Amino acid sequence: MPNPDIRSSILHTDLYQLTMLQGYLEHGMEETAVFEFFVRTMPPQRGFFMAAGLEQLVEFLEQARFTSEELDWVATSGLFSQSFVDYLERWKFSGDLHAIPEGTIFFANEPIARITAPLPQAQLVETRLINLLQYQTLVASKAARCVLASSEKPLIDFGLRRAHGAEAGLLAARASYLAGFSGSATILAESLFGVPVFGTMAHSFIQAHTVESEAFEHFADAHPDNVVLLIDTYNTEEGARKVVALASRVQEKGISIKGVRLDSGDLVDHAFKVRKILDEGGLNDVQITASGHLDEYAIQALVAAQAPIDFLAIGTKLAASADVPYLDCVYKLQEYAGRPTRKKSEGKATWPGPKQVYRQFGQQGRIDHDVITTVDAPQEGEPLIHKVMEAGKRLGSPIPLTQSREHAATQLIHLPQDLCQLREGATVEVQVSQTLRKLAEAVDAQH
Amino acid sequence: MPNPDIRSSILHTDLYQLTMLQGYLEHGMEETAVFEFFVRTMPPQRGFFMAAGLEQLVEFLEQARFTSEELDWVATSGLFSQSFVDYLERWKFSGDLHAIPEGTIFFANEPIARITAPLPQAQLVETRLINLLQYQTLVASKAARCVLASSEKPLIDFGLRRAHGAEAGLLAARASYLAGFSGSATILAESLFGVPVFGTMAHSFIQAHTVESEAFEHFADAHPDNVVLLIDTYNTEEGARKVVALASRVQEKGISIKGVRLDSGDLVDHAFKVRKILDEGGLNDVQITASGHLDEYAIQALVAAQAPIDFLAIGTKLAASADVPYLDCVYKLQEYAGRPTRKKSEGKATWPGPKQVYRQFGQQGRIDHDVITTVDAPQEGEPLIHKVMEAGKRLGSPIPLTQSREHAATQLIHLPQDLCQLREGATVEVQVSQTLRKLAEAVDAQH
Repeated sequence: MPNPDIRSSILHTDLYQLTMLQGYLEHGMEETAVFEFFVRTMPPQRGFFMAAGLEQLVEFLEQARFTSEELDWVATSGLFSQSFVDYLERWKFSGDLHAIPEGTIFFANEPIARITAPLPQAQLVETRLINLLQYQTLVASKAARCVLASSEKPLIDFGLRRAHGAEAGLLAARASYLAGFSGSATILAESLFGVPVFGTMAHSFIQAHTVESEAFEHFADAHPDNVVLLIDTYNTEEGARKVVALASRVQEKGISIKGVRLDSGDLVDHAFKVRKILDEGGLNDVQITASGHLDEYAIQALVAAQAPIDFLAIGTKLAASADVPYLDCVYKLQEYAGRPTRKKSEGKATWPGPKQVYRQFGQQGRIDHDVITTVDAPQEGEPLIHKVMEAGKRLGSPIPLTQSREHAATQLIHLPQDLCQLREGATVEVQVSQTLRKLAEAVDAQH
Repeated sequence: MPNPDIRSSILHTDLYQLTMLQGYLEHGMEETAVFEFFVRTMPPQRGFFMAAGLEQLVEFLEQARFTSEELDWVATSGLFSQSFVDYLERWKFSGDLHAIPEGTIFFANEPIARITAPLPQAQLVETRLINLLQYQTLVASKAARCVLASSEKPLIDFGLRRAHGAEAGLLAARASYLAGFSGSATILAESLFGVPVFGTMAHSFIQAHTVESEAFEHFADAHPDNVVLLIDTYNTEEGARKVVALASRVQEKGISIKGVRLDSGDLVDHAFKVRKILDEGGLNDVQITASGHLDEYAIQALVAAQAPIDFLAIGTKLAASADVPYLDCVYKLQEYAGRPTRKKSEGKATWPGPKQVYRQFGQQGRIDHDVITTVDAPQEGEPLIHKVMEAGKRLGSPIPLTQSREHAATQLIHLPQDLCQLREGATVEVQVSQTLRKLAEAVDAQH
């Protein structure tokens, strides 16, 4: 097969999706199915999730079609009938999507996306739907914790190189910006999503020069408007002194040094020493960026120590969501042909039927608890799930990423205090309504 | 920018790569640079790594060019000069690549890829090189541990949905097959890499039917040659009894049941009970597949309990490499214009110059230790690094994935016993030669 666009390929899925589809079609099972995506459990290192990835899901659902190369694969695989291939040629998503907006805080067991579509359509989109919603939600949730820990210091994503593949790096930049980061080092995140792009220099630039101060000067000459110098290649404080010396040399050319970056050792200790060297050299306006194995815990420690750091760059541990590298998330059939259903597998039971989540707020407007109930049950509180697509088409215009980012910022203001402080094990109570419990009992009675 | 192919885009990189490039070019720094990729530390949960991702790196290096859309972005970003844009328009990789073959076992600090190219070329490929080599190496290393734990039971990759994005899911299928898995559920891994593809059914297929046994029969009718039934949706042992009842019904149609899948609860306990039910029902040939939160530790436990399981499906924990979701891996400048160099940053110092790794074998042909030395130093043992590309072109034909997979299998035979047993903290000694130590001292003396 020629190189497909793996981001939009509907064939980039599990084989069993096609196997099941053929089974459904042979028995005329094309009635309306309702599937919901949710995270089953809250890891103790989280406490809350931030929804992300919806925009990429909508694009995928709107555009997904089988290409002729993909149909050829199905036809020649020996696993499927020609009538099935003919069906796939006409396949497109014509269903509805309800979802929680990007940037919204949510908790375990709360559906954040609901597909209502003929069964073969709702089934086939499963794998990519999970793949898209999980990863950005994973990163946005981690990034939001970094934002809460940062005491309003600007955060930059540096994660592309150690993200899991090309798409992960790109989407990590988007999800972290959504959650409140100031930008990313990843160029395509700027051109594709409008994420502000930032950059400094690598150790190799220093090492390629015989003398460190020459490397600094060459960089200043090449980028007079954005001189941020990496000073830890040989000795951090020596590096800072060279920056002070450089500043007066380049001043004659009209160049001012904007910042320095620390990337190793005890960042708190180095930050205090470097700040002192810079200040004594008259470089009070030169800002300090810190990077290197940072995450929300390291940020909390830097902030607690009042380290004089102006920017924080967060890479690997963000893009890999290192302490929670996956969510226990699923996409489950909740209703077929008007009949609510649930699986009862041990430890993996689900609540049946299409559902809504209502949020109740307490003191200072902070989240008090949520209630999950059936879509038509009366319930107090703010409903979180809204219709996003109807009959395969997006309702209204795409929501600009900056708008979702503002929504995310507002959400963080409403978090309970112990979640703001990242207290391990803290979360928000999610109640299951009596109506939903009774529906589950009624469903169970049928088996 | 129109949707770029993010897997081949040379602009899918960190901004600082371009910033540094302009700096190099303005000062005529286009002499030959040597960079090496290696993993700095061995996590206690690993003990060895398996090299993977080289094939995708070669393709990237051969094909990487700036598209006109990418050049437009650079030109209009306001960060770069027109002469720099003109340079990028001509940019292509014309250097050499030396590497350890895919499937080879390696350890901390051993370079597995070395780029020798004009500095601006060697610099620009950094981000994607790390991105490609890290992820597949991460997955192949995890997958090899599953293979060692499996006692030769066939393993299948089910990880696409919870992989970090579309490319990760695809490459996880490739890397796990390389390491000895039997195949994957991911369809595109078959069409792009020839990885055998496997599939069963999801709980939704069962739930969409009113009665579980009807779902089983519909699936058998639709896929008479590959009837593998998921039996844990409501009650695993009840499910097994329904399979026994179904077997005689479908026998008349000439259909035989091939297998059942368990996906929840105590897999050992269920496997014994289900095996007994199947055997008593005369279905001795029906095979049992187990899935659900499996990794090498769970596999060890299933094998130790002698659970009657025939196939193991490994998903999330493989594709996310859940216990070690990233490697402390880097791509560092080792020589520029014939001058060896190294960074001395605290805790991140590197060995200078282009290097070779020699492997020495001990009893039963198992790896005894490795020695890292300079490329031209005499040293006993088997050299691991070979030339793969010259002047921007691949030497010879691409190595078929099946051949690399055989190489990987042979490598596992030569592992020391305590690594085969996955003993935590065990690894292989990597010695640094006297020649290399003296070179480092000489380099340090210059600063």
